[in-house]
Amino acid sequence: MNDPAITPAVTAVADDIAEMEIRGAAAIADAAAAAIGEQAQASEADTPEEFRAEIRAAARRLHETRPTAVSLPNALRYVLQGMEGNTVAELRDSIVATVVEFRRELDQAQDNLGQIGANRLRDGDTIMTHCHSTDALSCVRHALNDGKDISAIVKETRPRKQGHITARQLRDWDVPVTLIVDNAARRYLNDADHVLVGADSIAADGSVINKIGTSGLAVNARERGVPIMVAAQTLKLHPGTMTGHTVEIEMRDEREVLPDAEREAVGDVRVENPAFDVTPPRYVDAIVTERGQFPPESIVTLMRELFGDQQNGEPWDERS
Amino acid sequence: MNDPAITPAVTAVADDIAEMEIRGAAAIADAAAAAIGEQAQASEADTPEEFRAEIRAAARRLHETRPTAVSLPNALRYVLQGMEGNTVAELRDSIVATVVEFRRELDQAQDNLGQIGANRLRDGDTIMTHCHSTDALSCVRHALNDGKDISAIVKETRPRKQGHITARQLRDWDVPVTLIVDNAARRYLNDADHVLVGADSIAADGSVINKIGTSGLAVNARERGVPIMVAAQTLKLHPGTMTGHTVEIEMRDEREVLPDAEREAVGDVRVENPAFDVTPPRYVDAIVTERGQFPPESIVTLMRELFGDQQNGEPWDERS
Amino acid sequence: MNDPAITPAVTAVADDIAEMEIRGAAAIADAAAAAIGEQAQASEADTPEEFRAEIRAAARRLHETRPTAVSLPNALRYVLQGMEGNTVAELRDSIVATVVEFRRELDQAQDNLGQIGANRLRDGDTIMTHCHSTDALSCVRHALNDGKDISAIVKETRPRKQGHITARQLRDWDVPVTLIVDNAARRYLNDADHVLVGADSIAADGSVINKIGTSGLAVNARERGVPIMVAAQTLKLHPGTMTGHTVEIEMRDEREVLPDAEREAVGDVRVENPAFDVTPPRYVDAIVTERGQFPPESIVTLMRELFGDQQNGEPWDERS
Amino acid sequence: MNDPAITPAVTAVADDIAEMEIRGAAAIADAAAAAIGEQAQASEADTPEEFRAEIRAAARRLHETRPTAVSLPNALRYVLQGMEGNTVAELRDSIVATVVEFRRELDQAQDNLGQIGANRLRDGDTIMTHCHSTDALSCVRHALNDGKDISAIVKETRPRKQGHITARQLRDWDVPVTLIVDNAARRYLNDADHVLVGADSIAADGSVINKIGTSGLAVNARERGVPIMVAAQTLKLHPGTMTGHTVEIEMRDEREVLPDAEREAVGDVRVENPAFDVTPPRYVDAIVTERGQFPPESIVTLMRELFGDQQNGEPWDERS
Amino acid sequence: MNDPAITPAVTAVADDIAEMEIRGAAAIADAAAAAIGEQAQASEADTPEEFRAEIRAAARRLHETRPTAVSLPNALRYVLQGMEGNTVAELRDSIVATVVEFRRELDQAQDNLGQIGANRLRDGDTIMTHCHSTDALSCVRHALNDGKDISAIVKETRPRKQGHITARQLRDWDVPVTLIVDNAARRYLNDADHVLVGADSIAADGSVINKIGTSGLAVNARERGVPIMVAAQTLKLHPGTMTGHTVEIEMRDEREVLPDAEREAVGDVRVENPAFDVTPPRYVDAIVTERGQFPPESIVTLMRELFGDQQNGEPWDERS
Amino acid sequence: MNDPAITPAVTAVADDIAEMEIRGAAAIADAAAAAIGEQAQASEADTPEEFRAEIRAAARRLHETRPTAVSLPNALRYVLQGMEGNTVAELRDSIVATVVEFRRELDQAQDNLGQIGANRLRDGDTIMTHCHSTDALSCVRHALNDGKDISAIVKETRPRKQGHITARQLRDWDVPVTLIVDNAARRYLNDADHVLVGADSIAADGSVINKIGTSGLAVNARERGVPIMVAAQTLKLHPGTMTGHTVEIEMRDEREVLPDAEREAVGDVRVENPAFDVTPPRYVDAIVTERGQFPPESIVTLMRELFGDQQNGEPWDERS
Repeated sequence: MNDPAITPAVTAVADDIAEMEIRGAAAIADAAAAAIGEQAQASEADTPEEFRAEIRAAARRLHETRPTAVSLPNALRYVLQGMEGNTVAELRDSIVATVVEFRRELDQAQDNLGQIGANRLRDGDTIMTHCHSTDALSCVRHALNDGKDISAIVKETRPRKQGHITARQLRDWDVPVTLIVDNAARRYLNDADHVLVGADSIAADGSVINKIGTSGLAVNARERGVPIMVAAQTLKLHPGTMTGHTVEIEMRDEREVLPDAEREAVGDVRVENPAFDVTPPRYVDAIVTERGQFPPESIVTLMRELFGDQQNGEPWDERS
Repeated sequence: MNDPAITPAVTAVADDIAEMEIRGAAAIADAAAAAIGEQAQASEADTPEEFRAEIRAAARRLHETRPTAVSLPNALRYVLQGMEGNTVAELRDSIVATVVEFRRELDQAQDNLGQIGANRLRDGDTIMTHCHSTDALSCVRHALNDGKDISAIVKETRPRKQGHITARQLRDWDVPVTLIVDNAARRYLNDADHVLVGADSIAADGSVINKIGTSGLAVNARERGVPIMVAAQTLKLHPGTMTGHTVEIEMRDEREVLPDAEREAVGDVRVENPAFDVTPPRYVDAIVTERGQFPPESIVTLMRELFGDQQNGEPWDERS
Repeated sequence: MNDPAITPAVTAVADDIAEMEIRGAAAIADAAAAAIGEQAQASEADTPEEFRAEIRAAARRLHETRPTAVSLPNALRYVLQGMEGNTVAELRDSIVATVVEFRRELDQAQDNLGQIGANRLRDGDTIMTHCHSTDALSCVRHALNDGKDISAIVKETRPRKQGHITARQLRDWDVPVTLIVDNAARRYLNDADHVLVGADSIAADGSVINKIGTSGLAVNARERGVPIMVAAQTLKLHPGTMTGHTVEIEMRDEREVLPDAEREAVGDVRVENPAFDVTPPRYVDAIVTERGQFPPESIVTLMRELFGDQQNGEPWDERS
Repeated sequence: MNDPAITPAVTAVADDIAEMEIRGAAAIADAAAAAIGEQAQASEADTPEEFRAEIRAAARRLHETRPTAVSLPNALRYVLQGMEGNTVAELRDSIVATVVEFRRELDQAQDNLGQIGANRLRDGDTIMTHCHSTDALSCVRHALNDGKDISAIVKETRPRKQGHITARQLRDWDVPVTLIVDNAARRYLNDADHVLVGADSIAADGSVINKIGTSGLAVNARERGVPIMVAAQTLKLHPGTMTGHTVEIEMRDEREVLPDAEREAVGDVRVENPAFDVTPPRYVDAIVTERGQFPPESIVTLMRELFGDQQNGEPWDERS
Repeated sequence: MNDPAITPAVTAVADDIAEMEIRGAAAIADAAAAAIGEQAQASEADTPEEFRAEIRAAARRLHETRPTAVSLPNALRYVLQGMEGNTVAELRDSIVATVVEFRRELDQAQDNLGQIGANRLRDGDTIMTHCHSTDALSCVRHALNDGKDISAIVKETRPRKQGHITARQLRDWDVPVTLIVDNAARRYLNDADHVLVGADSIAADGSVINKIGTSGLAVNARERGVPIMVAAQTLKLHPGTMTGHTVEIEMRDEREVLPDAEREAVGDVRVENPAFDVTPPRYVDAIVTERGQFPPESIVTLMRELFGDQQNGEPWDERS
Repeated sequence: MNDPAITPAVTAVADDIAEMEIRGAAAIADAAAAAIGEQAQASEADTPEEFRAEIRAAARRLHETRPTAVSLPNALRYVLQGMEGNTVAELRDSIVATVVEFRRELDQAQDNLGQIGANRLRDGDTIMTHCHSTDALSCVRHALNDGKDISAIVKETRPRKQGHITARQLRDWDVPVTLIVDNAARRYLNDADHVLVGADSIAADGSVINKIGTSGLAVNARERGVPIMVAAQTLKLHPGTMTGHTVEIEMRDEREVLPDAEREAVGDVRVENPAFDVTPPRYVDAIVTERGQFPPESIVTLMRELFGDQQNGEPWDERS
């Protein structure tokens, strides 16, 4: 059997993901699902077997562009699990319908999550934020829509100071913002009712992988008696962790920490710049998803609902 | 009785302290003690009463320049407590001798402290530092002198990044240095054997007032099982706290956090920039002084030895 | 389409619930389910659509009497989820059968729960109780039935001293009882093998909402090493919390705290009298339901089994 | 040698203390010291030995009236330690002078303590109180005198509701008061900046013996991140604990918990009504005395200063 | 109806289990399942009812040999739940097929579990072990297979020193091993990246029942910041705990603790030798099974998947 | 000046200490003090300088036999600090008198300590012990003398099982003893009212150095809510720790852990056998000495009373 034919649309999307033209968990998921839909529609397969092989090959092609991105396999799995039927036509139709469904859900997920998170906030509450997360901000947005007054203490979040983006967004919504350096977090936790952060990914043991500094903040929040909520769409749930895999932490360019202009004054030091850290579940009060809120120790049950127990490999694996 | 005569030397030193020409806890203490010595030598007092009044007036003049500096009253109290005798000559001699003694002890204090702190470090240990403290570095210096290999993880310490100075100093001593952002502290605590910091002042309830971020670091160090040692000369012990006074935390210029160049992008946010925070004694393992090491809960007994129990006011208070 | 016809039986039950003639989580649930059954039997609907609309309208009528009661919507949801069929007759029969099933399960739930809770108790154990809970007492009752000797330390539970009711009930069962004021709890925790309490409601994040004082007791129980078990039928699971909603805490009459007779001596003070507080899941060892015991962090999975994930609104919502 | 002569004044005071006509730690101390002064002045002893024996006998007579009261031996020890001289006249004069000094210090102690405690409070702070303590209230009084706004959350403090007295006193000083039941403490700790309580006595291991309920409150205060300060004159320091003795906890009349009027409804239960409990030092942030504030772990050093190390028995012990 | 006929194969296996000729959770499960298979094949039942009764009787016979073994009922339940059909032949075939499936899964379970646990280990990690667990060692074996370097600190595990077996096995795999007494665990936790233990059984409240000493190790591991993973096949999940039953802890021969040779020197002391202890879920980071890893608080959801909610008794219970 | 003459008595004692003929903290201290006394009496020095030099030389000779023993320098320092006078006769007499005093105090110290520790125990209490400590047992002995019933849970204390000696001693006093393996400690802590241990030495930061396993026991005791008391004569206070020195932990023969007879079965493993570990002060409730009880955080103040602040070296150091 020849290599299955992959359409140019899939190749183009794969290239864009690989080159980070398409970036962000939701954007990647959306593009990948759409590309599988295009593959289905453009397929010239003659037999169901051939069609299935093409779809699997397209999924593999997309998947291998960024093997550690979490939302990518989640999107592909969703779509391929929806493939059913006995004829090429049936298979094609099921794929197309599933893609539509997936993209509609994806489109609504942040809104649904935002409303659920907003329900945890009360009128007059002050949140403390770390880094920039559109999922977290969606919670604030919905709380404001519900007529609640919300204030924010925004950590600048070195090294890249994404807190500035958060502060700007909140100001545009007329939320009173106090900007602080990360070192000042414990002092200002006394004024916060919630710590509200996003997530890069969530592991089956309930750990939250998020921007470096999250775990230290969470430990202090627990010590100060401030609940911590993590806003994360189910796209962020990391299936590989169900089978014990750990999440590789990206080490970023040291110049984010020590720009060339400051290097000479400091001298010949080693600089380490991990992008994320791991917060154990015992320091998190709730993970808010578009499917409801969960204690972190329970998120594995949602993962099992969504992904099965991952014993049989991925639907795009090659079959003998 | 006329106002007691104060010599120009005292006035000059007072002006320099007020205008921060003389700065740093030890430098201020040294200059103030020397100025009292000059007052004693230049005095033209005829009677012991007159002489005493002059010395008290000089001490008051110096004290009021920076009423919240801790080392200043500590130096003045030391010197005035050494004043004894029945004649002007005896009083003068006792002052002069006490000034010499104080300055000699001050000169040796950081070395003594450094050796004591060094004794806590073992060959091969890795320390994590926050901000820049010559007391803390003295511990490292003596450990190196004792032939121990020491490595360092240096937090940059936003907003002013004094960690860069620490890193530079340690590199000049050939200590291997890893520089990290403050947010990365919890992750790298796994590689640290000690957290080693200085102090701005120490309170009678065992609290450590130090650069903003110290308390959050200490909470995480305890959670990770890493002992935290605070290097602080007894000059940093804050007598006012023995009678319950709290230490005022300086709020610094917001542009240290958000420079004008970054302000526009962020918009109309409030910025708060406290210089210090307060670490409760339960998160500190040892305070290392030139008089030995102490659990923070015991530092009050050293304060009582040095300062009495502060019930009778200061020796430079005006008498009826 | 006209407003759907609601039978007088439904109206009567709704009034009784609203006026608290019918009270207590189980009694309300039972009456509401029965009322829907009567509606089904009395319905004169001609079409399935009309029948369904009537049932939904009856459910809405009942629900709006006490919108914050937890057992009411749980009962209604159970019954309406059982409605199925293509004809009015089929719909009616399914409702009636579901009502019978619901009421039978309800009738057995406390017994089942009691046996499960009893299994956690060993012969010779001493429990500490807070407030009065028939679910909690059912656990003791079954332990006694199993031939175990159980002793009790009963907190009086100010302001309303429902501990007196608990003490009386336990004495009637020949359980040795020591009555203490709430302030004495920590001292007597040294003599307790379990803290055993009921719940007003349980939230999806694992929090337990129960009589004011429960959370302070739980924190002390954890500190003393005494496990805490919460006895709560699944009727107490609060579906709204799955989507982040928080539970409103009732503020009760201040005269429960400060009767008029004591007011004058105290003077013009504000009195606050919240009925409940919130115990975080990390201070609870097990939630015992009629469906088994659960760590509080897992109760959300039981809620999802029972209620779905609450994304589609309630079955009695009006349809376009 | 005959039994030493004791004056009627001593006997009268001893009787009043025994019959609780004289009560309260400070009143007992004051009366006992005065009685020794009267014994000294009325003594007809011929020899120094005789005089000393009389004074010791008087002290023993007073001491045995309430052997577990802490302030009584502290007063007697202070006075007898001041006895010195080689003649009856010298001994008498030294006793009289010491009595004057002791009573003057006692008179000022609460004020001094109050000012020290007040220094820990900031303008706008809210305190939470337990029971009624004039030492604790002295801290509030001085804070008000210093122009600070203070609010109070007052626990009623079952069984005897001494919180009502505290509330009344604070209202008379125009302090805004919120009265709550003891069970509501954890909820309102979120609104408190300090827990402020008195002490019945303080042990050498740093434990605080105070009204039942203090320890449970302290555990919750630590969990909520609220510092706890204990206001206690040095009269409350319990010397016997330096040699390991534990403090006997008084069990009070069960009718304080369950009045006869409520007994019948409850039935045949055992009632336990301990007056005090023991708070470990790790849950206390500061003990405020008239001699300054101390971490509880350091209070033993103050006890050693005041009492020696208790190896040689009490100065009123009979000598061979 | 006569007593159902049980085949000699079942009786023989039952005897071997009772006399501990067959021992170990997996071996017992395997033998019991096989015995039911033999019963099915040897059955001479004429009717489906008769056949079912025989199978239930065989299961009961096997079950009662060691009523507290966990894997035994789990195996029986699995097999009997697979029995379906309307004829004896169908029933027989379904049993036989289920037995094959069960034994194949059992055969693979430890491998699957080992791979999942291995995924949690990183190259260069050091584990600390307690007792001897083939499930735990399977994790190490797979990590080695994956090319990771693993070192081990092995607690000897008094009284029976099964740590020696673990050490021997690891050495045979060329793992560097440091053997320590149990008392040295806290000191060496500083050098460990994971605590890795097996389990005797797992309870529905997330508690881990394992070799005596596990809970004390887990408490110290948490205090030292070392994550603890428990390797346990789902055979170890204890269904009875879902309904609150506690796990009986076996008390073993005191001579394991105090051999006769040492008894005389010690004298007439009581010796207690419990085989297991209970580790609360809050001290465990992950339970690794062949079905994936779980926070201990979630294991109940896996139990519900595997066992239902245990409300209807066991499939081998006699029916009326 | 010639080398100072050392008497044969000193040399003999030094040899006995070096060869561990004299062992145990108190025995060493007693012998060393006596030897200095003999040196003083046997001295043929002509001048005070010569006499002083001899005494210092004798002290150095004794000290260097076991430089890490704590009681040895403590004894020498005590005696040499008592040397005063202007003539050889005066110096000799002062030494002899001080030696008598030191030995008498030493003789009484364990008794005094025992009574103080006994005061912490109440009638009916159960203690848990680790290793064998005559100081700890002295507390039990005095409690028994006071008529209290005491029971004991005795950990065997691998590797050397000194718990057997403790058990035997307690049985000889008719104390009910339960012997357990070290692994069973957490389970039996539920039955213990106190953990009672001795100490090898105590550090100025409040750490307790004691038999390996103490720190793990203390962490569990705190978690279980059981107070831990350490019985240690002031001889055990380690002056070097006042200046930051850490206590070297002896590594003992691996055959204590793995006898030759067991080695072959285990194979080529590394064995580590540290004699002691370090318990941080936060896990200790009280240190009981013959001078009273202390929170561990305060022990440094007792050390300062006894030893000064160690800035001026030891009295036996050679002088220029």
